[in-house]
Amino acid sequence: MTRQELVSNIKSKSSFLCVGLDTDLSKIPAHILSSDDPVFEFNKMVIDATSDLCVAYKPNLAFYESRGPSGWKSLEKTMDYIPDDIFTIADAKRGDIGNTSKMYAKTFFEYFNFDAVTVAPYMGEDSVTPFLEFDQKWVILLGLTSNEGSTDFQMLKTSTGMTLYESVIVQSQKWGNPGNLMYVIGATHPQLFSEVRQLAKEYFFLVPGVGAQGGDLEAVVKNGKNDDMGLLINSSREIIYAGDTPDFQNAIRQKALTIQGEMSKYF
Amino acid sequence: MTRQELVSNIKSKSSFLCVGLDTDLSKIPAHILSSDDPVFEFNKMVIDATSDLCVAYKPNLAFYESRGPSGWKSLEKTMDYIPDDIFTIADAKRGDIGNTSKMYAKTFFEYFNFDAVTVAPYMGEDSVTPFLEFDQKWVILLGLTSNEGSTDFQMLKTSTGMTLYESVIVQSQKWGNPGNLMYVIGATHPQLFSEVRQLAKEYFFLVPGVGAQGGDLEAVVKNGKNDDMGLLINSSREIIYAGDTPDFQNAIRQKALTIQGEMSKYF
Repeated sequence: MTRQELVSNIKSKSSFLCVGLDTDLSKIPAHILSSDDPVFEFNKMVIDATSDLCVAYKPNLAFYESRGPSGWKSLEKTMDYIPDDIFTIADAKRGDIGNTSKMYAKTFFEYFNFDAVTVAPYMGEDSVTPFLEFDQKWVILLGLTSNEGSTDFQMLKTSTGMTLYESVIVQSQKWGNPGNLMYVIGATHPQLFSEVRQLAKEYFFLVPGVGAQGGDLEAVVKNGKNDDMGLLINSSREIIYAGDTPDFQNAIRQKALTIQGEMSKYF
Repeated sequence: MTRQELVSNIKSKSSFLCVGLDTDLSKIPAHILSSDDPVFEFNKMVIDATSDLCVAYKPNLAFYESRGPSGWKSLEKTMDYIPDDIFTIADAKRGDIGNTSKMYAKTFFEYFNFDAVTVAPYMGEDSVTPFLEFDQKWVILLGLTSNEGSTDFQMLKTSTGMTLYESVIVQSQKWGNPGNLMYVIGATHPQLFSEVRQLAKEYFFLVPGVGAQGGDLEAVVKNGKNDDMGLLINSSREIIYAGDTPDFQNAIRQKALTIQGEMSKYF
């Protein structure tokens, strides 16, 4: 998907919501478990309930891999089911030497036809650039993540005069551009959001870690929005496990509606 | 596998060779392509030709994932075929927030029954520790990798007074111990090997990047060996693509024999 298409979807839906498909057999409503492929069945119901309210879906690869080949089949069916005009992100956190990154890129961009894949920057340029060589495909590079461990290495000051995550954001702009590169910036660091935006003004940020609280969303938008919105706010468990009764699909829709309603104020 | 078992295998085989199974359909001998599962068929022949000469196998996940669910089936069959007394490494470079890393750990340690998985440190402690909670299973954390991009971030000096890769090696020893944690240290940095060894005296290093040259192996052993050898030297393409005639299995064995012969001098 091109940047222009993504921005146009965001504007027409008044939404920058990304729904995370972290589908866990131990958490999906019991009555679905008897179907042939409960993970796909559940994803289908999540997609039906949210596809007019969100602009992206982000399957978390770990939840599919943990079931071996059958998990990958559920992922394949899910990808086929997601409407073509919705941006798809393989949350895979890959990154390896050149020939291996190229194989990962083929996996997600060619085999599964994802629009984007999350990539870890530790191994540097030649681990990232193979993902950038595919037309209309995107790298979402880990910048400042939402978890506690983000302080262990990402926030170390380096000899560049910047912290590690700042170095990653600055350095990687030599490899990609705002049309094929985004950054993961966690919502749990709202005080840093405006500084990060200054380092990457035109880039999109994929933002995990926003809770039910309008406050967090407000802080992220206030400090992180750019002219094209430039934000994809992810919500996974909060939306997909919003209910566990047979009527759970309605609970999912209500939660997505609430979030999209909040988002619509910023257009 | 316990550390004691691994060390005992290394001594009894006079080998610290790890064979990387980066099995690529476009590179395996043409006459195998007609079989039902050429990747598994090829791996089986590699394993038959090398299992008495090596102590570890390291499937590179990218090469299996790029073929979707059928690639994962080839991996599953390969894991079933590898003899139980050989250490198995999922070269997967995973690492994510806690609940996701836990799912990846289940994938590799429970579903596939690998002994070890390679993990990327960028996201810090809570992305690594879920992998350390499995009995007799190992994390192999990226320290100083063998690729060119290793200089981009890993070698940045940080406010700890150490480079990033040194910080990773020092900090992570608070999370794991020499019985469940190893490091990836590339053979392409021989001049740094003895310094790294000083930072992690008892730990095993998984060493990619050793070429056909005895010189490289010699430098790595000289600078990196500890009392238990403490090294697993990986060779992937050099061994598995040693020949492409119908007699390729013999070429593979000869290459592995040469490397093991070099290694035996250090016992």
